[in-house]
Amino acid sequence: MTEPLTAQLQSWRQRCETQLQTRLTPRDGATARLHEAMRYSALAGGKRLRPILVYCTGTALAADLGRLDDAATAVELLHVYSLVHDDLPAMDDDDLRRGRPTCHKAFDEGTAVLVGDALQALAFEVLAGHAASALNAAARLQQMQVLAEAIGTEGMAGGQAIDLAAVGQRLTPSALENMHRRKTGALIRASVLLGAIGAGTTAGARYDALSRYGSELGLAFQIQDDVLDVLGETATLGKVAGADAARGKPTYPSVLGLAESQRLARAHCDQAVAALKELGEAASLLAQLADYVVNRSH
Amino acid sequence: MTEPLTAQLQSWRQRCETQLQTRLTPRDGATARLHEAMRYSALAGGKRLRPILVYCTGTALAADLGRLDDAATAVELLHVYSLVHDDLPAMDDDDLRRGRPTCHKAFDEGTAVLVGDALQALAFEVLAGHAASALNAAARLQQMQVLAEAIGTEGMAGGQAIDLAAVGQRLTPSALENMHRRKTGALIRASVLLGAIGAGTTAGARYDALSRYGSELGLAFQIQDDVLDVLGETATLGKVAGADAARGKPTYPSVLGLAESQRLARAHCDQAVAALKELGEAASLLAQLADYVVNRSH
Repeated sequence: MTEPLTAQLQSWRQRCETQLQTRLTPRDGATARLHEAMRYSALAGGKRLRPILVYCTGTALAADLGRLDDAATAVELLHVYSLVHDDLPAMDDDDLRRGRPTCHKAFDEGTAVLVGDALQALAFEVLAGHAASALNAAARLQQMQVLAEAIGTEGMAGGQAIDLAAVGQRLTPSALENMHRRKTGALIRASVLLGAIGAGTTAGARYDALSRYGSELGLAFQIQDDVLDVLGETATLGKVAGADAARGKPTYPSVLGLAESQRLARAHCDQAVAALKELGEAASLLAQLADYVVNRSH
Repeated sequence: MTEPLTAQLQSWRQRCETQLQTRLTPRDGATARLHEAMRYSALAGGKRLRPILVYCTGTALAADLGRLDDAATAVELLHVYSLVHDDLPAMDDDDLRRGRPTCHKAFDEGTAVLVGDALQALAFEVLAGHAASALNAAARLQQMQVLAEAIGTEGMAGGQAIDLAAVGQRLTPSALENMHRRKTGALIRASVLLGAIGAGTTAGARYDALSRYGSELGLAFQIQDDVLDVLGETATLGKVAGADAARGKPTYPSVLGLAESQRLARAHCDQAVAALKELGEAASLLAQLADYVVNRSH
């Protein structure tokens, strides 16, 4: 990772933290515990890849950061909600997330269900908010539509349903790709598109190119996640290494082997970068970001 | 209930069913089971009170029904999502809903979590949709903001968190009212406001009057629900009568007694009707609807 990219990622990550802190203030009273559990889950660090993609795409298209904050916040809130629900006993039954007990372990299962529900609602509340809106209503509506589709049955929730049904099954490579594109890829692609829409690029060749970039990057990211689940150490990952294999979940390494999975992650990353040609030099940070995603160790 | 109201409710209910059928078509492939579970939960009948409130409010303000369909569909999708999650073992642990096994009983717990998640996303997708939109973008954004607030920590999810923590506790009447206003009242009030916004009434004295109407009606509805939980028979309710009391949940009858609860339901209904004075004769069906809510037997 080059020095300028490192510094830039850190700056965007910090901006995302500030936004999340603003949206997730502690509360007294009857819902204090719910708010505490939402803060516990959302303010536990993390890569913040999705908000970074909003900022990186938007600034590549010359948008002010202030026009991107709400979208960046919304995609991260949705990502955190999905983690909290995925970790539930009825889903992946995970005890550890980002090096700490998962939400239902630290609080309780009912609270974890509500944390996810409330974070999803908050994401749409943030995007719909009128106050100090730097974006026009049509652009905000388009962002909400892209986002709602990305997390629905055609996207994240559908992918998770396929994942749930796939435990102990042997998936074909194309079924596995379909699952990953929906479960992880759809929200990553949406993050890129929300940045574009925030910059006023709502259709056309550059919008389509960014859609391809986001789609390929999302798949590369999830394949690399599968690879790290095999290669990584628990301490570095912040979650239990080898957990997918232990649960009998089909992963890229289990279906295609480790070497082929690493090759595929690289190939999809290359396709993501190739799609950026349409944007010229402005997209150089997006290309570096793609390399970072595939070369990361956690 | 007067004859014209009965016929009108049936017509709106039928319109809502048609809209839901359109939005929840069966699918083949990897997510077939998720779609089947969504249809099982959303197309099981029910009072459809919330969409009826959208239609009743909107038409009182002279809106075409076509301008109200998306909002009516969205509020019902959100209501169904809340029922599916509330029924989960980690929440109310209910086996029966609308006379049939609850979603997690008929399918499985992981699927029920995803059904709720996907229905929430679908509600926002419906409202954000551009195609054939009869409403301008600003009005749709306002609808989404009202709705997102109504189901978040200040509304439904917050109310459910209070409910979860209240099992076995003795709540004060004002704490109980706070819980009910959030858990049930907020979405009922939002349904009224979405109808108003759909009719172009986005602020002002009539908007405020309808907000009061929705707020009081929502509370009256939930008190009556508590009363029916004591009085009703399982067959008529379609859920297990006396279930709240058996779980040690604080209810209006358990805190204030049955007679006082019935008096309060009536009083809040009267306040709802009083708020309608601002709208004159146009609101007569809304007034009848309030009476229907408090006099219903299921």
